[in-house]
Amino acid sequence: MKILITGGAGFVGSRLARLLLDRGSLAGRRIEQLVLSDQVPASPALLADARVQGRVSPLLAACEGLRDESFDGVFHLASAVSGECESDFDLGLRSNLDSTRALLDALRHRSNRGTTPARLVFSSSVAVFGPDPSRPLPPQVADDTLPTPQTSYGTHKLVCEHLIADYTRKGYIDGRAARLMTVTVRPGRPNGAASSFFSGIIREPLAGEEAVCPVSPEVSHPVSSPQRTVEGLVAVFEASRAQLGGRMALNLPALNVRVSDMLAALESVAGPAVRARVRFEPDPTIQRIVSGWAAGATAERAASLGLQAEASFDDIIRAYIADCRASNPAALKGLAA
Amino acid sequence: MKILITGGAGFVGSRLARLLLDRGSLAGRRIEQLVLSDQVPASPALLADARVQGRVSPLLAACEGLRDESFDGVFHLASAVSGECESDFDLGLRSNLDSTRALLDALRHRSNRGTTPARLVFSSSVAVFGPDPSRPLPPQVADDTLPTPQTSYGTHKLVCEHLIADYTRKGYIDGRAARLMTVTVRPGRPNGAASSFFSGIIREPLAGEEAVCPVSPEVSHPVSSPQRTVEGLVAVFEASRAQLGGRMALNLPALNVRVSDMLAALESVAGPAVRARVRFEPDPTIQRIVSGWAAGATAERAASLGLQAEASFDDIIRAYIADCRASNPAALKGLAA
Repeated sequence: MKILITGGAGFVGSRLARLLLDRGSLAGRRIEQLVLSDQVPASPALLADARVQGRVSPLLAACEGLRDESFDGVFHLASAVSGECESDFDLGLRSNLDSTRALLDALRHRSNRGTTPARLVFSSSVAVFGPDPSRPLPPQVADDTLPTPQTSYGTHKLVCEHLIADYTRKGYIDGRAARLMTVTVRPGRPNGAASSFFSGIIREPLAGEEAVCPVSPEVSHPVSSPQRTVEGLVAVFEASRAQLGGRMALNLPALNVRVSDMLAALESVAGPAVRARVRFEPDPTIQRIVSGWAAGATAERAASLGLQAEASFDDIIRAYIADCRASNPAALKGLAA
Repeated sequence: MKILITGGAGFVGSRLARLLLDRGSLAGRRIEQLVLSDQVPASPALLADARVQGRVSPLLAACEGLRDESFDGVFHLASAVSGECESDFDLGLRSNLDSTRALLDALRHRSNRGTTPARLVFSSSVAVFGPDPSRPLPPQVADDTLPTPQTSYGTHKLVCEHLIADYTRKGYIDGRAARLMTVTVRPGRPNGAASSFFSGIIREPLAGEEAVCPVSPEVSHPVSSPQRTVEGLVAVFEASRAQLGGRMALNLPALNVRVSDMLAALESVAGPAVRARVRFEPDPTIQRIVSGWAAGATAERAASLGLQAEASFDDIIRAYIADCRASNPAALKGLAA
């Protein structure tokens, strides 16, 4: 089968590509070709696999060319992140809304010719939830909590969920939307996401660098490790429609933690000297965005697919450390030997 | 003040224009200019008013020209209807989604120059609600029922609600979305809406014509009269943001009636001979669409604005008859003198 990953050179996309290549099959079929589409090139390690084809272009520009190409499966991960969408309204609309429309229409074009509709998994986000001014969020958002997003990013994700449900209803695609929790610990540099610090406060101290936490230690948030996240995307792809229980988007499993829990876990796994590298310095913009997010989430439908969150944040930190030991030991130079 | 009504030559738009002209003011300000934009010309009676300017063009084409024009208020009613959207997917996307985006961006363009954001009322629809395959609707949908639309039309309305909430959050417009119930009794000919029969089964018998009801007499549905509907749009325009209780769309008041109740009211108001002109002839396409709609609705937030549904369907029929007597007595030629 032939698979497309949009945003395939990104962190989640690369990790998903690695998982798919290692598995070799998806939904019982052998993966013959894996196309990684992104604005930047995929990693040499992925491109070295004969099954992988990298394509570098903005998604919106690429979609016209996709109309006559046949994909059995699509993971649509490409997205401008929350901070970018707040600071550049047009960029957000173009990257998240227009690009998704163009991708869906490209897939529809082929299905109109009688081919089997492509199965598509869309990476939505827990950011679809937010407190409407008169309507506070429940402590934990569920699959069927009313989404009233408080950011442009969350708005775009929710809009795309509904477009995908409608294209699916019409038989143009076999679409599924999975709401990702905040993925942590992300390696590399901070990105434009307002949630970036949820990785930074773990990653930087482990690398021996100072880190700034822009929100209060009491802030609670639903998170997930990179590995559980990509396993979730694969499980949602492989699920039958009956197993999914409707066309609505589903939450991926969340570990609901406070910032203080995350730092306690850091101290427990890496020691007090590493923990001491994090200082609190409130950032009103980040605080405002984060206060519009869910403090926790449940994931009943994902659980029915066998998906579970990590048991503790310690496990997430240990998994990050193990990843770094294997691929980038320099990221751990703040850790006592 | 200067007001724009998109879809201003349509049935609801014309009726709203008439109400605004008769009132002469809106939100405490005198209406100096009322622009009626539509694909067809507005009625001569409306155009005869010196305050009215008619503009004939597709909305999408008109929006570029709106970027440098200043409107204090906008009623955005233009829309492809449910049946059209089901049969022509691209038409629906263009008319309902792309046109709304273009309108919002035109209004944003001016607000970016420091002018007061235009107040905008969007006519959303009870069609945003539908039963997700695994998730039946409650007997009556409320303001905060989770919308899982089962038609393209309902999907577009919901998507526009969320875009409007986000443009409002950013301060580009002062947007409000009111979910219209099915407006009945509509005069004139059947339109492409799957709900068209909710008017036809009253209008045609009163005109002395046979009418076909494509669904079972047990089908229940939330309806409203034309007059209550346009009064609702005006009240939502005039409400303060605090009165609206958040940015979420609100339901307009509904009279929840079964088809059998509607026909009993017809017999009660117009006699058994008129009622006898309606016959039942199931239409699977219409049945399928209607089965995806709410059977009833509540409107708590609208009630807090002082809006109420009609007390009975008899009242709605009597109001229709009174309208026809004033403007088009031929529409009543089936009624005994």
